[in-house]
Amino acid sequence: MASRTSIRKVGEFGLIKLIERTLFSPKKQSGLVIGIGDDAAVFETARGKWNVITVDAMAEGIHFDLRYTDFRKLGWKAMASNLSDLAAMGAEPKWALINLTIPDKIKVEDIKELYRGISGCAKKFHIRVIGGNITRAKNDFVISITALGEAEKNKILTRRNAKNGDVIAVTGDLGASHAGLRILQNKLRSGIYGHVVRKHLTPEPRTKWVQLLKKSGVKIHACIDISDGLSSDLKHVCDASKVGAELSLDQLPIHSATKQAAKALNEKDINYALQGGEEYELLMTLAPLQFEKAKKILGKRITAIGRINASLQITVIRNGKRATISAKGFKHF
Amino acid sequence: MASRTSIRKVGEFGLIKLIERTLFSPKKQSGLVIGIGDDAAVFETARGKWNVITVDAMAEGIHFDLRYTDFRKLGWKAMASNLSDLAAMGAEPKWALINLTIPDKIKVEDIKELYRGISGCAKKFHIRVIGGNITRAKNDFVISITALGEAEKNKILTRRNAKNGDVIAVTGDLGASHAGLRILQNKLRSGIYGHVVRKHLTPEPRTKWVQLLKKSGVKIHACIDISDGLSSDLKHVCDASKVGAELSLDQLPIHSATKQAAKALNEKDINYALQGGEEYELLMTLAPLQFEKAKKILGKRITAIGRINASLQITVIRNGKRATISAKGFKHF
Repeated sequence: MASRTSIRKVGEFGLIKLIERTLFSPKKQSGLVIGIGDDAAVFETARGKWNVITVDAMAEGIHFDLRYTDFRKLGWKAMASNLSDLAAMGAEPKWALINLTIPDKIKVEDIKELYRGISGCAKKFHIRVIGGNITRAKNDFVISITALGEAEKNKILTRRNAKNGDVIAVTGDLGASHAGLRILQNKLRSGIYGHVVRKHLTPEPRTKWVQLLKKSGVKIHACIDISDGLSSDLKHVCDASKVGAELSLDQLPIHSATKQAAKALNEKDINYALQGGEEYELLMTLAPLQFEKAKKILGKRITAIGRINASLQITVIRNGKRATISAKGFKHF
Repeated sequence: MASRTSIRKVGEFGLIKLIERTLFSPKKQSGLVIGIGDDAAVFETARGKWNVITVDAMAEGIHFDLRYTDFRKLGWKAMASNLSDLAAMGAEPKWALINLTIPDKIKVEDIKELYRGISGCAKKFHIRVIGGNITRAKNDFVISITALGEAEKNKILTRRNAKNGDVIAVTGDLGASHAGLRILQNKLRSGIYGHVVRKHLTPEPRTKWVQLLKKSGVKIHACIDISDGLSSDLKHVCDASKVGAELSLDQLPIHSATKQAAKALNEKDINYALQGGEEYELLMTLAPLQFEKAKKILGKRITAIGRINASLQITVIRNGKRATISAKGFKHF
């Protein structure tokens, strides 16, 4: 391994300069007044728009393990998880602030790689880093990002507007992120697991898909991103909307690599799909005709997996049998 | 000590409910669309205003020591340090998001106290908590806050506009926060050190003072909050504005308790004042007539400590003797 530079050596301001260079982007972005380098960043909101803001953190030993990932992928994922929250609100990404707590073992080269990952994701989804904070930590490396987006007034998506009779739909496929984690934990990495490992380490926020639906006039009643797990996040929608749901387990979109991973580990892919966190897919509810419209636009990228009802409970159907389930998913504590 | 509740017992969502109750505030705030409880918060910017955003973190063992402070004071200080950044930009506080990484040793009662402190500061300075994030951590307790404010378009204050001939002024007094820290570290706590201990543990952001100046039409050229230390932060202003400065050390406002603390510890109060971090006072530069105007409004709460010049260097005068200094202050790394 090449020699590594301690952050103490370049100092806080040296590090900030390096970060600015790594993030360098020549084109100006409309609305930015002051970026990195003052006590705070300043931006202007476009006319007729609302600001949407979210903050999310990833802590070493809890959300990631540096034995399975690298700093570049970590930077991508931290940004992607925030973009996913903005996508779930139907907002267009605009600005991000990066907040790092850095223990001594982390070196300048690591931070550079981290920002390359952040920058790659930022470029792809048109979000600009305008500020942040760097703090030394005793032990844990934590990256937290504040992301801001804009949405047309009264056109945001929330989790509280699901309606009786709505189709429950999800983007992409389910359970893959958890399958990827299990593959990495068990050192089974191989080409056949490429999809699930990618879904775990470098997830794609569904920013563009939700924008496509909104621009095409598809009316989405409720939307949430699947970060805690399908059953947990569906429960959040049902609780906030005061409705119930019936899930058809046979309809859950599960990728063949996810099935293979579960099989190799003697685990159940259906559990990955119901309870796996960090999916960063969107769960939405729409009136049946609106779902048909969405299906025409997104094709295989969206799947109906159940119906909203008035029961206040979540039931599942599998092979024609019905059962109630309790929400299980990623537990932070 | 009363029995303490593990966070695992109430769970993430139990904790969020408790936080919402602790933060409960009955009056609606104009501009808020969606607060705590969805994938992101949503707010509207007032017409003709710019958004000002900052993020700041405090890490256990680096910025605070739970032997010297308690969770309520910690919550206050975390909020105050962010409000100080907004004040330095001349912005009116509006919204905050609280981001915690919590190791197992931290209990539900601690978080409740923390939010009481956050809430107390938020109430006093009219900032509303609209979201956040809670994450488990392996070792370090870190509180980071994203704060948002609004300023009239083209009426923000920056560090890059100091002009040759400006008076350099500071609010309040200098060196007290560092004196307070030294008193706490040396267990010399007593009534006579009340001022310095308060300045260290529960600093007051100068939000109202800067608003008062702006409303009275005082033209401030450059402004920064003293978080790294006077010499460091003055250097930031000089570098960003491409000017130099001459500081009159005999004019630095140093509180009698700060002098007493330095004496008791056999240290120099002038070093506390030049290099002590976490002051949360404002350093501003203004044309001499504007300073006179500010002085009439703030009285003893503002002091002239030097002049901006064209030298690109910082010199100090003490007892009529002149010397150049290098910026020293709080080093994060």
